[in-house]
This record gives sequence, C-alpha cells and structure tokens, in this order.
Amino acid sequence: MTRTANITALSIGSVLIATLALAQSDPLASAVAARQAHMDLYAFNLGVLGGMAQGALAYDAGAATAAADNLVALASINQTTYWLPGTESGAVEGSRAKAELWSGIDDLMAKNAVLVAAAAAMQVAAGTDLVSLQAAMGPLGGACGACHMSYRVSN
Amino acid sequence: MTRTANITALSIGSVLIATLALAQSDPLASAVAARQAHMDLYAFNLGVLGGMAQGALAYDAGAATAAADNLVALASINQTTYWLPGTESGAVEGSRAKAELWSGIDDLMAKNAVLVAAAAAMQVAAGTDLVSLQAAMGPLGGACGACHMSYRVSN
Repeated sequence: MTRTANITALSIGSVLIATLALAQSDPLASAVAARQAHMDLYAFNLGVLGGMAQGALAYDAGAATAAADNLVALASINQTTYWLPGTESGAVEGSRAKAELWSGIDDLMAKNAVLVAAAAAMQVAAGTDLVSLQAAMGPLGGACGACHMSYRVSN
Repeated sequence: MTRTANITALSIGSVLIATLALAQSDPLASAVAARQAHMDLYAFNLGVLGGMAQGALAYDAGAATAAADNLVALASINQTTYWLPGTESGAVEGSRAKAELWSGIDDLMAKNAVLVAAAAAMQVAAGTDLVSLQAAMGPLGGACGACHMSYRVSN
C-alpha cells in the first residue's frame, strides 16, 4: 500500500472504531439487539426453506443448500457475548428472554446441539429433493421451538 | 420419539413455517432487514474487538478470538438472497444500498474477499496479544469501509 492508502485505511478504521465504541456505550441493549439480529437471520434463511416446503417458493436445490449452509454457519457462531446476565425480559427493552435461561445454560447448550444437528441434516436434505427438504423441516422447526418454549416469554 | 412428541414437534414446525411464510410476504423488505441484521452482527463483534483495541474493554484473548471467529463465520454466509435487485435506496424503506451495487457485483465480491482475508488475519492476531489485535484492526475497518464508501448512500 502507498502511504496515502495507508492513511486512508487508518482513517476509515478510526471512524469505524469510534462508531463501534458508541454502540458499546449501552452494552446490555447492544447485546439484546445482536441476538435479535441473529434470530432474524435464522428466520430469514428458514423462511427460504419454509417457503419451498410449503410451495410458496419454487424448489431450487442451490438456493435451498445456500440457506441450509447459512443456518449451519449461524449455529456455529459463539453467542456468549449476546446473552449477558441482566438482559432478561423486563430488564432491557425488547428482551423476551426468561430469567430461567441463565440457570439453564447446560440445557440451552444441549438444545443448541439439537439445532446444529437438525441444520446439518437440512444441509444434506436441501440439495436432494423437495420431499427430503420437507421431511427435514419438522426437526429444524422443532429445535427452534424447543428453545423458545423453554426460554422465551410469550408475546 | 413417541407419537406425542412427533406431533408436538410437527405442530411447532407448522407454527414456525406459518410465521416464516408471513415474513416472506414482503420479500424485498425482508431481504433488506436480513442484510441489516447481518451488518449489525458484524458491528457487534467488531465492537468487542474495537473496544479492546481502544482500551474501553479489557483485553481478553478468548473473547477476542470468539469475536474474530464469528466475523469469519459471518463472512462465510451466502448473502445472495439478501441483495435482491430492486432493494436499492429509495426503492425499499431503510435501504442505503446504492444502485451501483448491482452493476458492480464482481468488484463487490473482490471487496468481500478482502474482508474475509482481514477477518482471517484477525483470527490469528486476536488471540496473540493486544498489540497484534490493534494492528489487525486497521485492515479490518478498511475492508468494511471500502464497501461502504462504494456502495452505501451517506447518511
């Protein structure tokens, strides 16, 4: 890189870091927003698969596989920093997490392992055919729902 | 699984699929929301690293590595379904994508490859020491900023 390019890159980095530091000024709200963004991305990719399963979207092996790959990548993300103690429903605006979540971490991780397995099964099924995709949808939805039923406050 | 458990899992799956189908009823707005969620997750994990780089957060090799791992996982996500044509700024509420993005896909993918490389470098640096983390922050911020400067409408 030239010196000018270096300075430009550093300036962009500094602006970005300043912006991010601002986002960190309310770490609890920021953590809640991050986990909700994570759930939104699960929902979006599940929506592609669910749309095909229901016939609302045409079955496309490539798009279905990409969505399943994304679920596996998302499930691999370390969410430790998203689930800070003190971010349960009532403590932070918009949070729907039950306080029981923080006393049930082992169960939570076991439920997450079921989700990882269901997403991995969907990775294989999604590219096979529509019937396989539909069959893999139940366990995947069940894995999501199991955690919501235990640890998410009802609307 | 017992028959009851099967039925329960199927019911949860059906509810989930119905919810997701609803989310898909405005696919353009849904795609914009998904890519913004993706950017939020980049920002959150970068915020952990940026906070340490600036001294606002104590340096923690494990947490820094987890954040860098997450950036690599996020960068691996196939975003094809998030960047639908017709979702540029002005066409969908809240979108800040310039129309040039869709004529610059090759350049966009090249810029994404730079981000992937910067995130991979951060994966090594983050667990090494604070000075290494700080040094890796510039290229990472630069990779984010390069895409924003070319393809994001200013606030």
